[in-house]
Amino acid sequence: MIWVVGAGICRGQITERGKEMLRKADIVYGSRRAFELIDFELKEKRILGRFDNSVFEEIASEGREKEVVVLSTGDPMVAGLGRKFGKMGVEVRIEPGISSVQLALAKLKVDLTEVVVVDCHARDFDSSTLDFFKYRHLLILADRRFDLTKLGDRRVVVLENLCMEGETVREGFADSVEIKSDYAIVFVERDKEVVE
Amino acid sequence: MIWVVGAGICRGQITERGKEMLRKADIVYGSRRAFELIDFELKEKRILGRFDNSVFEEIASEGREKEVVVLSTGDPMVAGLGRKFGKMGVEVRIEPGISSVQLALAKLKVDLTEVVVVDCHARDFDSSTLDFFKYRHLLILADRRFDLTKLGDRRVVVLENLCMEGETVREGFADSVEIKSDYAIVFVERDKEVVE
Repeated sequence: MIWVVGAGICRGQITERGKEMLRKADIVYGSRRAFELIDFELKEKRILGRFDNSVFEEIASEGREKEVVVLSTGDPMVAGLGRKFGKMGVEVRIEPGISSVQLALAKLKVDLTEVVVVDCHARDFDSSTLDFFKYRHLLILADRRFDLTKLGDRRVVVLENLCMEGETVREGFADSVEIKSDYAIVFVERDKEVVE
Repeated sequence: MIWVVGAGICRGQITERGKEMLRKADIVYGSRRAFELIDFELKEKRILGRFDNSVFEEIASEGREKEVVVLSTGDPMVAGLGRKFGKMGVEVRIEPGISSVQLALAKLKVDLTEVVVVDCHARDFDSSTLDFFKYRHLLILADRRFDLTKLGDRRVVVLENLCMEGETVREGFADSVEIKSDYAIVFVERDKEVVE
């Protein structure tokens, strides 16, 4: 059995349930960054540098014999690891964690039901994404390579490195702000002229 | 100062940070359901039957003098209490919690960046919501009064009472399934014929 457990983004953000699963696990896999969020002892810890298919196959094979936890920063179902074990013939369950999306919404005081969350981490910005501005604000998970000028001259709030060193929140126009971190979230308000 | 702290949906789903805030608070406000999720001592606990403006004003007034926590089931920024203190002249901070949306996505193994989350709790279904099917799956927060036939003959998954007594997950067609709980989430797949 494999549990993919969300570690949250800040220290102390893991849930009691998640903590219990980590403590019971025979093996815990995770990135260095994920393990930095955890301050208690584990039976066996395996630090992963990369998450590619061969790694997922190895974990799946362990999961057929043992209680395996994959520790995921944030939430496994927010641009996360939760879907990676799809067809590997092993039972996988997901335990949610606090995501960077939730931290951003908490700072912005905007509700999840007012936004569309878009994953532009190492991914192209689909032009149809702009259609959403008719209905909703956008919350874009972005990295340094994300091209803000695609948002035109809209006002944006760029939240970077939430709960990490160098946390910043900056406001400005999309064509004049720069993304400096690979852990960035860009909030863009919906178009106002459209009446629902 | 007021902290709105997410309690999660299941027992043991509060984060360590949230727990610490509750322990330190002079007063904790919350619904009976929210307090049922908490199994540790609090300095002062005030159970709220209703959340109307006069209640929020009372809490805001306490918050100017004391450390006040409002315990919110789920996440305060998911169809939540987080925005209620907007213009009441008191500093409000939000501490995220696990929402029913996250539980549903974990069960469905669907990522947040593949859906649009719609709040139809005691609220009308906006016909423009159907436009989202061109781009995304829908995850609808619903209650017994929600009219599933608005979704046509689409396939739906109805998740009810997550982490409560009577938890069920049922699949079927929108025009033949019934919502039996006021804590329901309806997952509807996007339209397939559209190429992005």
